[in-house]
Amino acid sequence: MSDRKGGQVRRFRLDLGYDGTDFHGWARQPGLRTVQGTLEEAVGLLLGSGSRFDLVVAGRTDAGVHARHQVAHVDIPDTARLFQGPDGGVQTAAELIERRLGSLLRRDPDLVVHGVQEVDESFDARFSATGRRYVYRVADAQSVSDPLRRRDTLVLGHVRLDEDAVAEASAALLGYHDWAAFAKPRDGATTWRTLREFSWNRDGSGVLEASVAADAFCHHMVRYLVGAALAAGRGVHTAQTLVRIRDSGVHGRGITVVPAHGLTLVDVTYPSSAAECWAQAQRARARRSPGTSETSRG
Amino acid sequence: MSDRKGGQVRRFRLDLGYDGTDFHGWARQPGLRTVQGTLEEAVGLLLGSGSRFDLVVAGRTDAGVHARHQVAHVDIPDTARLFQGPDGGVQTAAELIERRLGSLLRRDPDLVVHGVQEVDESFDARFSATGRRYVYRVADAQSVSDPLRRRDTLVLGHVRLDEDAVAEASAALLGYHDWAAFAKPRDGATTWRTLREFSWNRDGSGVLEASVAADAFCHHMVRYLVGAALAAGRGVHTAQTLVRIRDSGVHGRGITVVPAHGLTLVDVTYPSSAAECWAQAQRARARRSPGTSETSRG
Repeated sequence: MSDRKGGQVRRFRLDLGYDGTDFHGWARQPGLRTVQGTLEEAVGLLLGSGSRFDLVVAGRTDAGVHARHQVAHVDIPDTARLFQGPDGGVQTAAELIERRLGSLLRRDPDLVVHGVQEVDESFDARFSATGRRYVYRVADAQSVSDPLRRRDTLVLGHVRLDEDAVAEASAALLGYHDWAAFAKPRDGATTWRTLREFSWNRDGSGVLEASVAADAFCHHMVRYLVGAALAAGRGVHTAQTLVRIRDSGVHGRGITVVPAHGLTLVDVTYPSSAAECWAQAQRARARRSPGTSETSRG
Repeated sequence: MSDRKGGQVRRFRLDLGYDGTDFHGWARQPGLRTVQGTLEEAVGLLLGSGSRFDLVVAGRTDAGVHARHQVAHVDIPDTARLFQGPDGGVQTAAELIERRLGSLLRRDPDLVVHGVQEVDESFDARFSATGRRYVYRVADAQSVSDPLRRRDTLVLGHVRLDEDAVAEASAALLGYHDWAAFAKPRDGATTWRTLREFSWNRDGSGVLEASVAADAFCHHMVRYLVGAALAAGRGVHTAQTLVRIRDSGVHGRGITVVPAHGLTLVDVTYPSSAAECWAQAQRARARRSPGTSETSRG
């Protein structure tokens, strides 16, 4: 396969996880520690100085948001030293990259690469993805709050949430809708998405865990959704009001985002065949403007 | 009720949890940040300068060990200002203590007091307890290791554990035995304990979680038990060998402790009636030397 400039490249899928607490989000930013920046630095060390590569991610998470399972892909020039070394014969290129990235990232316990696979160009970490799932954790008055989980749990202390109201509001919001009212505004990008799952469970410590799944999310959409459900749980809004706010398409009408640290990206799904990956990427590129970054943010 | 010196005191049960990462264990130590030291400082501030009180805990955890559910009791002199204030009429003393301790500890996210109850002298956090349960988390080659859980998970990277061997060894060790071979030696304390549960499960990320329950544990006993089961899982020892090592009663025969940070105290159980609490405390005091601290450590 060849890159945009016609050079031969090989594509690798990276599956990774991170504790977002001490990262300024996914996207590279000058002078700030970000997940993309940290990962690109490691890939750069792996490939040697002067190397060029593109890193594309499924879900660009905001500062403080975690990922138990994030997916990215990277195109590496066929001419990279990596592919010429003596190790090449013993291990596959993907095994070599996984092992070396593992060594390079060992000093950074906040970021782990779970696995590396070589894929063909039909696979696009961002546009081939057919679904993303996030979890949001909330400890209310009924929960036994656990200091060990404070990094990924919103603690509401003495608030008593009406679980039935939370569940009713969450279920009422499901479906294919324009989510402009539940998204941080951005120019020129569609805000139509299919919310497939928005359910809540209490875990062993009584912490409420929301599971939120969609084809893709607008920027801040999961945090607006959770904010809306919690407003219902506190008796501030009914499910009907929240549906009306959603259908108004007007941003900023009484829904507030919840903090980032309770949010974790837990799953990204792709079609099983290369042909479907390709077709999905074509559809997604046509629907969304590739220049914008709202596509898959939580 | 009265204290050892004959002064009138009231006894309160404290249920708490902590992230042990940045504590030097439970027990107060001069110049070091410990859970007991932090909690006693807060109780001291609550009671005012010159106050005297005794704090007794169910499970004295080592440096790095966590607690999702720990239990302590504190005897507070009846003459404490706390009981005389105008708040006394509106709230119970226990509610007042819970609220004030909550405020005092708000700046320390590593330690949370879940609840406070006034109890009578039949309740002893240490000697009335009839059972303790710990969880130990291990990520092996089959696990997707999660940076968010690195504080309470032992990561064994590329080790492939034989789960059947782990389960077989753990089951073989159950029962009432002398655990001297699985304990850090201490003078003058019994090492007979009943290991009631030692089972393993993989969680959603494939992390192996051991659940280990006994009437009480000798010092380091849970960490020796987990070390023994992992040795079986790596093919280093058979279940039969581990049983022979246990029955030899000789410490240091090929079993190594696992690191502290994978260990969390998750439950302490007490009899439901005051009479049984009292009887249990009498039995436990008779069996164990109160001067030693091995009683209930993980």
